Amino acid sequence: MIVGIIGLGYWGPNLVRNFLAQDKVSKVIACDTLSERLKFVKTKCPAAELTNSSEDLIYGKADAIVIATPVDTHFDFAKKALLANKHIWVEKPFTSNTAQAEELIEIAEKKNLKIFVDHTFIYTGAVKKMKELADNGELGKILYFDSVRINLGIFQKDINVVWDLAPHDLSIMNYVLGEHHKIAAVSANGIANYNGKENIAHLSIYFEDNCFAHFHINWTSPVKIRKMIIGGDKKMLVFDDMENYEKIKVYNSGVEMKSMESIHEALVQYRTGDMYSPKIIQTEALSLAAKEFVDSILENRQPLTNGTDGLNVVKILEASNKSIKKRGKVIEINSKSFVEV
Amino acid sequence: MIVGIIGLGYWGPNLVRNFLAQDKVSKVIACDTLSERLKFVKTKCPAAELTNSSEDLIYGKADAIVIATPVDTHFDFAKKALLANKHIWVEKPFTSNTAQAEELIEIAEKKNLKIFVDHTFIYTGAVKKMKELADNGELGKILYFDSVRINLGIFQKDINVVWDLAPHDLSIMNYVLGEHHKIAAVSANGIANYNGKENIAHLSIYFEDNCFAHFHINWTSPVKIRKMIIGGDKKMLVFDDMENYEKIKVYNSGVEMKSMESIHEALVQYRTGDMYSPKIIQTEALSLAAKEFVDSILENRQPLTNGTDGLNVVKILEASNKSIKKRGKVIEINSKSFVEV
Amino acid sequence: MIVGIIGLGYWGPNLVRNFLAQDKVSKVIACDTLSERLKFVKTKCPAAELTNSSEDLIYGKADAIVIATPVDTHFDFAKKALLANKHIWVEKPFTSNTAQAEELIEIAEKKNLKIFVDHTFIYTGAVKKMKELADNGELGKILYFDSVRINLGIFQKDINVVWDLAPHDLSIMNYVLGEHHKIAAVSANGIANYNGKENIAHLSIYFEDNCFAHFHINWTSPVKIRKMIIGGDKKMLVFDDMENYEKIKVYNSGVEMKSMESIHEALVQYRTGDMYSPKIIQTEALSLAAKEFVDSILENRQPLTNGTDGLNVVKILEASNKSIKKRGKVIEINSKSFVEV
Amino acid sequence: MIVGIIGLGYWGPNLVRNFLAQDKVSKVIACDTLSERLKFVKTKCPAAELTNSSEDLIYGKADAIVIATPVDTHFDFAKKALLANKHIWVEKPFTSNTAQAEELIEIAEKKNLKIFVDHTFIYTGAVKKMKELADNGELGKILYFDSVRINLGIFQKDINVVWDLAPHDLSIMNYVLGEHHKIAAVSANGIANYNGKENIAHLSIYFEDNCFAHFHINWTSPVKIRKMIIGGDKKMLVFDDMENYEKIKVYNSGVEMKSMESIHEALVQYRTGDMYSPKIIQTEALSLAAKEFVDSILENRQPLTNGTDGLNVVKILEASNKSIKKRGKVIEINSKSFVEV
Repeated sequence: MIVGIIGLGYWGPNLVRNFLAQDKVSKVIACDTLSERLKFVKTKCPAAELTNSSEDLIYGKADAIVIATPVDTHFDFAKKALLANKHIWVEKPFTSNTAQAEELIEIAEKKNLKIFVDHTFIYTGAVKKMKELADNGELGKILYFDSVRINLGIFQKDINVVWDLAPHDLSIMNYVLGEHHKIAAVSANGIANYNGKENIAHLSIYFEDNCFAHFHINWTSPVKIRKMIIGGDKKMLVFDDMENYEKIKVYNSGVEMKSMESIHEALVQYRTGDMYSPKIIQTEALSLAAKEFVDSILENRQPLTNGTDGLNVVKILEASNKSIKKRGKVIEINSKSFVEV
Repeated sequence: MIVGIIGLGYWGPNLVRNFLAQDKVSKVIACDTLSERLKFVKTKCPAAELTNSSEDLIYGKADAIVIATPVDTHFDFAKKALLANKHIWVEKPFTSNTAQAEELIEIAEKKNLKIFVDHTFIYTGAVKKMKELADNGELGKILYFDSVRINLGIFQKDINVVWDLAPHDLSIMNYVLGEHHKIAAVSANGIANYNGKENIAHLSIYFEDNCFAHFHINWTSPVKIRKMIIGGDKKMLVFDDMENYEKIKVYNSGVEMKSMESIHEALVQYRTGDMYSPKIIQTEALSLAAKEFVDSILENRQPLTNGTDGLNVVKILEASNKSIKKRGKVIEINSKSFVEV
Repeated sequence: MIVGIIGLGYWGPNLVRNFLAQDKVSKVIACDTLSERLKFVKTKCPAAELTNSSEDLIYGKADAIVIATPVDTHFDFAKKALLANKHIWVEKPFTSNTAQAEELIEIAEKKNLKIFVDHTFIYTGAVKKMKELADNGELGKILYFDSVRINLGIFQKDINVVWDLAPHDLSIMNYVLGEHHKIAAVSANGIANYNGKENIAHLSIYFEDNCFAHFHINWTSPVKIRKMIIGGDKKMLVFDDMENYEKIKVYNSGVEMKSMESIHEALVQYRTGDMYSPKIIQTEALSLAAKEFVDSILENRQPLTNGTDGLNVVKILEASNKSIKKRGKVIEINSKSFVEV
Repeated sequence: MIVGIIGLGYWGPNLVRNFLAQDKVSKVIACDTLSERLKFVKTKCPAAELTNSSEDLIYGKADAIVIATPVDTHFDFAKKALLANKHIWVEKPFTSNTAQAEELIEIAEKKNLKIFVDHTFIYTGAVKKMKELADNGELGKILYFDSVRINLGIFQKDINVVWDLAPHDLSIMNYVLGEHHKIAAVSANGIANYNGKENIAHLSIYFEDNCFAHFHINWTSPVKIRKMIIGGDKKMLVFDDMENYEKIKVYNSGVEMKSMESIHEALVQYRTGDMYSPKIIQTEALSLAAKEFVDSILENRQPLTNGTDGLNVVKILEASNKSIKKRGKVIEINSKSFVEV
């Protein structure tokens, strides 16, 4: 299989390297309009073929096109590539709006082409472990999902902190909770202190059942925190991605409803027990992601992180932007049963 | 001065002990309707006088009445005490609603009595240091205030997690930012997983200027986090109350606007530098609070944490409850200039 | 039972409080020559009887005498009390040398009196859990014991840092390893930067089998560390006493000997797996210690931490002082089979 | 300048990459007898020339030879290269004994060739900052140096944990303290639980003045700790290499001698103050080391980490092995004035 990669910025060279390492990929063609980025890739990955013309690439011999350009160019490249009968890999966030995502999905379905959206975190050992613990019932019914991703980070010129950082966490939430809990609505708050793009944001997500999720993202924090808590009615889990060794801790702790013995006692009590930290497999996630994309094409099946997963994240991002402009006003997603109050 | 203390639950005995230790307090009378609580105080603080009648206490010889009972009883006790010409100390939150707080303030003003609201954190060395750093300009203009207070905690029967935990953090925010930034509105989200009272909540606070604050409070977290970040345009501060030694860290870090040299470069850049952790004075906050109450009475002046401070917190709590019922709908506070969108 | 307590310095008032709380103790008589310490105890523990005469106490009606005075006075008070037919509780370290300890043990045996040595840590939930994990075989054969106890601490006038801090850790080691591994010798190094008493010391302990232990103690560290590692050939354990919640962590990690397949591969390999942190019972250790003393008297049996345990710690302290003067020269303890090299 | 590199194991490819990146290096020739290591380097660093003959390399056109082979082969390769008029870079530890180191230094001096010993840590921003703080007097007189480097690590077949890990820490100590404090003797203890090579060791180092150092190294720890404390009589410093951001913390804490006012008060008291964490420059140390080697050749001067520095570390390693066999017996180093006791 021949893979073409458009966009050789921060992430592109990693993509080139990982696709070169795939057994079933015979050639990788890397493309950028800037000659210095082509030179950089030449040095790091001398086995890659180079081109400065995305047109040549898209209409050439590649079987699949990887799109690692700024978000607002995803749709055009992706549509062109699909229409040229190429499978596509698109960096996160998938598109600039839901209409674009839906159109791409529709084209791909008609032509039986694969769309892979690069929610890389789904391929980490830690997230796979979280999914396993959620699915095997160890946590019990999940009551809430809390995520913090804050840092002193590079501002993006074209998008706010929600579109830059939240796709990581939203894709993890959808993966871990998705089958069990249906998203109903989002309320978002935040502030743009500098260039008109929000640098701090808080997203609250309501589900059709009594589950709740919150995402705190911030480009202007003096400390770097990347932490998630999943509260189940049996056990609770903390994922701290800044830890080198004990990334996931499972607490045999929780809250229990007691039958009322006396009006003088609390009806809700807490319980603490042992904690354990499962061993996490350490394989480079991007390598596993590249393999999944290649395999999905060869096996003619949907990849684990496909267009629909990309769309589901874009829906929340889009609703968040609407909500944040109205200072927290709740915006429905999907749900027919969710009644705005 | 004679001080009477009503309510000998979790916090009451600490109040008895600290008032007994005040030089200018000649007698402390402790009151509860439960005989086992009276016995408990007798053992711990044998110097205290005891009574099971709040009526006797309020209409007796005490100069000041400390009210440490459940929130929904604060107003009745407080009003009675003021009308009986007693100065009052009220535990946080001050009252169940703003109308009650305003009525108490009005009565106290007319009778030249003091209202002290027990925002204990204001008397800690760490918060005093935060105030000092905000006031002396070291942080620059404050852009945001972020607070997390989560734990596996005892559910309160009568109030939700906002009314239970947020008064600590709101009073700190008001103290540190108050004079420089005027609160405009609040948007709150959360969930009640158990008994109809929210156990998780997120408050976003908008100011009349471009400052922003957020409060995350949770009774159902497997881990205990008590952390604040204050983002200034010069320096940034982190207050971690779970640290034993380095509670406050000041980061010479921030974000800087660069004049645009090239459209290919980011316009907003970050800067990192040294960090330092100032020494914090370790005196029991409640002891300093008791002294402030006594002194404010003897010096006939407003205490540092007075009725107005209590009212300002209750305003936010009240607005938060309104907002949380409408899933994040923004609720104005004070502001005439804040236009709902 | 009547308990007399001599020495009301830092620790004495805690002893008074805990013995007052024992059901089977009818009276506590507290003794110090300084009137301000007697006053302090009067305020904190009004139920205690007071005296400034240790003679009156020792030759009075008390059934047991608790000795909480400086180390160099332990022997005289203890001997007098035993000869006066009192059971004794002695603070750590038991005595100033092994000869004193042996004499006291001999007297107590003859008179069937109990000696309790206050190795308080043995009564903590964390140490009990360590003992349980060592005894039930979960750690496998124990290969090493490593302890660090450093802080910016108060210098003792009469003893060096070894005699001040190491008894805690040595008593824990003896308790956890004692039955399974016999101590053979000690090599100690250190430095006295200030007043001629070592403020930093390192003790290495050799066992008759291939086990090894090391103790790092320091009064002049800018950071407070209280950490132990127990390396077993199955699992390894870390006890961090500065952690509020996860004090003990058990690592399913270790080193494995592989049969030699190829001279190009390492013969010794490491293995990592899950970690877990067992729930620790939180009861005040001193309360359990007081109960054990009282029960051992009433049941006429040796207490868990008795004279022999005190002696075993003093033996190591004594040998350490000899070794440290000779800059690490190994000093035998007990062992006949240990040949100095 | 042409640089030849012998030994392409774990570290070799990093050396190839960093020398390729040096402006003044025109060619890098990489050498190993294993064809798979040559292939690996070909893939990672296609610009390197390859050979499987160290003879060809040493007697070829290279100006300098980098020796990254097992310790027991350092001397032969190094001597051959010097005799062939090549400057040499030798990985740590420099040689297997002091005699070898002295012979190499003598040859190099006679032929005016440079010996660089790869004490890489000396080129890190953190160690440079420690040196700066020691030299500019901020710490005051240095009283002790304490180092811990423990992990679950790969056993080396040919050397014990002292020779494997301690060179890092000893080279840092020599660099930071070296000019101000002269080493007098070492006492070492440890245990070999597996293959006859010590896997745990403790080195105590005595200086001619009242300074003291200790090194704890362990291949069989379940947790990874890399921490140093430098105790000065003005300030104290902690270097925690496992921290991502605040690697160095300087504590305005210490111990003070008070003139004796009363025999009832301690004569030595402690003092705590602010802490600060200086910003550390993050440049790859190995790149700076390679530059230093190249510059020292071109400028005909001794490199910062030269043969003498290598020798000084080997002296301590050699003495440690002697001491550890005699269970802590103190072994003199250098000093004439140090009298064994």
